[in-house]
Amino acid sequence: MYEIDVNKNYDLVKKSGAKQKTVIRVGNVEIGGDGFTVMAGPCTVESLEQIVEIAKEAKKAGAHLLRGGAFKPCTFPYRFMGHGEDGLKMLAEARSQTGLPIVTEVMEPSDVDVVCKYADILQIGMRNMQNYRLLHAVSKTDKPVLLKRGSWAKLDEWLGAAEYIAAGGNEKIILCERGIVSFEDHTRWTLSLSVVPALKEITHLPIIVDPSHGTGRRNFIIAMAKAGAAAGADGLMIEVHPVPDKSFSDAVQTVGYEDFNRLMQELAPVVKAVGRNI
Amino acid sequence: MYEIDVNKNYDLVKKSGAKQKTVIRVGNVEIGGDGFTVMAGPCTVESLEQIVEIAKEAKKAGAHLLRGGAFKPCTFPYRFMGHGEDGLKMLAEARSQTGLPIVTEVMEPSDVDVVCKYADILQIGMRNMQNYRLLHAVSKTDKPVLLKRGSWAKLDEWLGAAEYIAAGGNEKIILCERGIVSFEDHTRWTLSLSVVPALKEITHLPIIVDPSHGTGRRNFIIAMAKAGAAAGADGLMIEVHPVPDKSFSDAVQTVGYEDFNRLMQELAPVVKAVGRNI
Amino acid sequence: MYEIDVNKNYDLVKKSGAKQKTVIRVGNVEIGGDGFTVMAGPCTVESLEQIVEIAKEAKKAGAHLLRGGAFKPCTFPYRFMGHGEDGLKMLAEARSQTGLPIVTEVMEPSDVDVVCKYADILQIGMRNMQNYRLLHAVSKTDKPVLLKRGSWAKLDEWLGAAEYIAAGGNEKIILCERGIVSFEDHTRWTLSLSVVPALKEITHLPIIVDPSHGTGRRNFIIAMAKAGAAAGADGLMIEVHPVPDKSFSDAVQTVGYEDFNRLMQELAPVVKAVGRNI
Amino acid sequence: MYEIDVNKNYDLVKKSGAKQKTVIRVGNVEIGGDGFTVMAGPCTVESLEQIVEIAKEAKKAGAHLLRGGAFKPCTFPYRFMGHGEDGLKMLAEARSQTGLPIVTEVMEPSDVDVVCKYADILQIGMRNMQNYRLLHAVSKTDKPVLLKRGSWAKLDEWLGAAEYIAAGGNEKIILCERGIVSFEDHTRWTLSLSVVPALKEITHLPIIVDPSHGTGRRNFIIAMAKAGAAAGADGLMIEVHPVPDKSFSDAVQTVGYEDFNRLMQELAPVVKAVGRNI
Repeated sequence: MYEIDVNKNYDLVKKSGAKQKTVIRVGNVEIGGDGFTVMAGPCTVESLEQIVEIAKEAKKAGAHLLRGGAFKPCTFPYRFMGHGEDGLKMLAEARSQTGLPIVTEVMEPSDVDVVCKYADILQIGMRNMQNYRLLHAVSKTDKPVLLKRGSWAKLDEWLGAAEYIAAGGNEKIILCERGIVSFEDHTRWTLSLSVVPALKEITHLPIIVDPSHGTGRRNFIIAMAKAGAAAGADGLMIEVHPVPDKSFSDAVQTVGYEDFNRLMQELAPVVKAVGRNI
Repeated sequence: MYEIDVNKNYDLVKKSGAKQKTVIRVGNVEIGGDGFTVMAGPCTVESLEQIVEIAKEAKKAGAHLLRGGAFKPCTFPYRFMGHGEDGLKMLAEARSQTGLPIVTEVMEPSDVDVVCKYADILQIGMRNMQNYRLLHAVSKTDKPVLLKRGSWAKLDEWLGAAEYIAAGGNEKIILCERGIVSFEDHTRWTLSLSVVPALKEITHLPIIVDPSHGTGRRNFIIAMAKAGAAAGADGLMIEVHPVPDKSFSDAVQTVGYEDFNRLMQELAPVVKAVGRNI
Repeated sequence: MYEIDVNKNYDLVKKSGAKQKTVIRVGNVEIGGDGFTVMAGPCTVESLEQIVEIAKEAKKAGAHLLRGGAFKPCTFPYRFMGHGEDGLKMLAEARSQTGLPIVTEVMEPSDVDVVCKYADILQIGMRNMQNYRLLHAVSKTDKPVLLKRGSWAKLDEWLGAAEYIAAGGNEKIILCERGIVSFEDHTRWTLSLSVVPALKEITHLPIIVDPSHGTGRRNFIIAMAKAGAAAGADGLMIEVHPVPDKSFSDAVQTVGYEDFNRLMQELAPVVKAVGRNI
Repeated sequence: MYEIDVNKNYDLVKKSGAKQKTVIRVGNVEIGGDGFTVMAGPCTVESLEQIVEIAKEAKKAGAHLLRGGAFKPCTFPYRFMGHGEDGLKMLAEARSQTGLPIVTEVMEPSDVDVVCKYADILQIGMRNMQNYRLLHAVSKTDKPVLLKRGSWAKLDEWLGAAEYIAAGGNEKIILCERGIVSFEDHTRWTLSLSVVPALKEITHLPIIVDPSHGTGRRNFIIAMAKAGAAAGADGLMIEVHPVPDKSFSDAVQTVGYEDFNRLMQELAPVVKAVGRNI
């Protein structure tokens, strides 16, 4: 099923020789190039009206991609788990009205085909970072893959997971830091921004930061978005909802339109200060 | 796909009223009853001769079940990932020669059927603790499920994962502590034995301890096996290999026959000291 | 002030040649020998009547030493910080009525003299594990020192702290595991029992376990006391109070007389099962 | 010794009413005002020539204060522990030649007087964050206190320590994030920048970031310095040495003059991008 070669661990995703920097293109958007890329949208796609409205607001504020969950992992089995393919169709409609490419999660090998029909970027969620069958399945598609860091993952475990995707033939991989477990209790997870310079040394893959999950606290998102940019990240993923406190999930870590606008305005000078375009 | 009920989180796996204790029976073996149950075997099934020999030695030493991986998750993609169905057949042959029931890992919903053909207990590995599709798939079988704790999982996340299996109709769940991430560096993971009394308060499910993964250090396994028993666990899972340093995987945390014998001999009085049979 | 020798880190506390095991004697009590030693008492000495009563009850239940705080570190500055020397006098009176030697905390070099006047064993609390001036000060006394592990300390940091005491001339050191910081939330700290076999390999010093602080949860103390003994510890430190919910501090992790009696009764067979006397 | 008031935990350091922001002045330097403050210098003061040279280079590059250790805590007892008062005199000479105020560590109550003779700011090191006697001693001086976060400390434990200083009468406190323990191994500690916006909500005290200790990796310091500024910190503490690999301590996390210059140049636009002066 897989070839056996005990001598290399993650050679394909390592920087080496000519391979210094992977730039991923999705429509008109580049990730890992000179620009800085913002992905925004709700945790869960709730309705067509909702996702279209958010897409328009996100675009107006300056976002480059639309995120939104159609297949949702939930810690407990009795929660809303997304609209499935219907949710993907809503995302596609939002894309057609705004031009924003779509990033959305895929949870299972057997769902890869249907998600590929609609998505521009396949997201592998934190819980599935070491679901190797799923990594293998997305490696056989031609879609870029956004690979979230497991909340327990050391860098070599994360890069090992990325290597599965590369080893299957797909090197269009975006790494996403979203917080780790620690003893801290002022945030839900501890956003570890030092992975940004560390990964820049090791790998040619782009790296983005998710301060929404990475803190789990709405009030800290703008500060940590700017910190992520200053640390050298290639982009951000931000949860946005028209009425955060009424969102189906992740309310505590979701910003409204006004905060998202402020985030984009405060972010721009920081991005420029580290020599990138936005 | 799943029903929606935001009012309960893990009601099925909680202790309540008549449901104080679940005893799981596999062949002549009980897990969660008055006895103490030891599962032993190699990380990976390497060959028919190997697994049959280990099964015989494990049985002689007093083990009650045989563990062994046919489908193996590996941190890097270039390692040996198990013999697949051939490995399952080797396990079945070892069972037929020794009478020891088999516990083995299943990694993917599409493998559940083939693993069920051979296994007595389905193991969900640490990396898949929140692979909800896989949890749902095993919930639809009639096999007991051994659910390893994610190295990042708080108790409610772990019980939430167990609830997925119960919610699908299968309450034959065995919880297995196998170590968590922490800052410690004298072990690979930190074996957190306080989950044993904590889970005994909350859930009716049996709980076993894996000191092999839980420490990642061969020399500490016997001490932590006894500690797990003294803490009140219902059993242990131990990695055993004829020549640990030559095992395909997990060499550093695998004991040989002699150490396993010593473990079983030193374990017995501790098990009896806490009022259980072995 | 200290000599400089960059070539050794903690040579004095390491096992080597003839130095395989340090046995510490206090009155009739041995720590680190064939027996198993239980230190019990309140977090804080509250009154003479209280400490005498607890000492008598602890002795009756089988405890070997009396613990109790006269100088108390508190996370916030507005709490009761102990009776100071008056508290030491109460401890001494309890000793004279029961014969139990006293272990009590010293927080500052300038307090070492007064604490030495009354105490049999000087305790260095978790917060002061790397208070090197204090370590140096206690190294110049002839009293045994109980050195609690910092909740953040790797083994080499802990042994480095012990080495300060040994380097100053005092090798009568008892190490005490009392839990580390981690992401877990079912306990206040994570009691890491694998340090017991790990330390037994490295150092000749005795090691005891404090399941009261190590869990911060009254209901888990008996189970973890037994687990600590089974892991090979040389003793335990247990918080006992006549009415735990009314104790000045640490109520959530303190057991009453009845529970302490049960602990001692359930502990005895486990201690014997691992080949020690109690 | 201390008053007892169980009803307040850290009221003095909390934001409230008129107390929104504490600005600390040392010579011509402000900490916590509109400007951004950089403290730079070696881990340990090694010689008069060295500290004077570093002070001049640091000043030229734009630093505002000089840091340097005269009393050094070391994990193992056989290392160089600083020149003591001689080191303080060297710092004072460097100050007189450059005008840079001095921040230096005090380890023990009995050293407070001598350190106060020379220092402009008293530093409480990580290991002493909960050395309450030391906190009390510095609370009785009129010097600003830089209180490093313990690598294990939750925010309330850190603010509780600050409250000790405030309760003793000294509210000139600067909080300094310097990394926490976690499972990560690409850095020595995990620099947790989300404490910056979190503390800005809770306390009126200024907060600075130490990316040198916070990462323990020279290559990541510039990126994390910028990230700290973008997160909203009031300043930085940076370890600088003429030949980092030859420094007496902390070589792996110390930058040379060239890197420090680059740090200051790259930092300036980020500081301005978040609306502050430098």
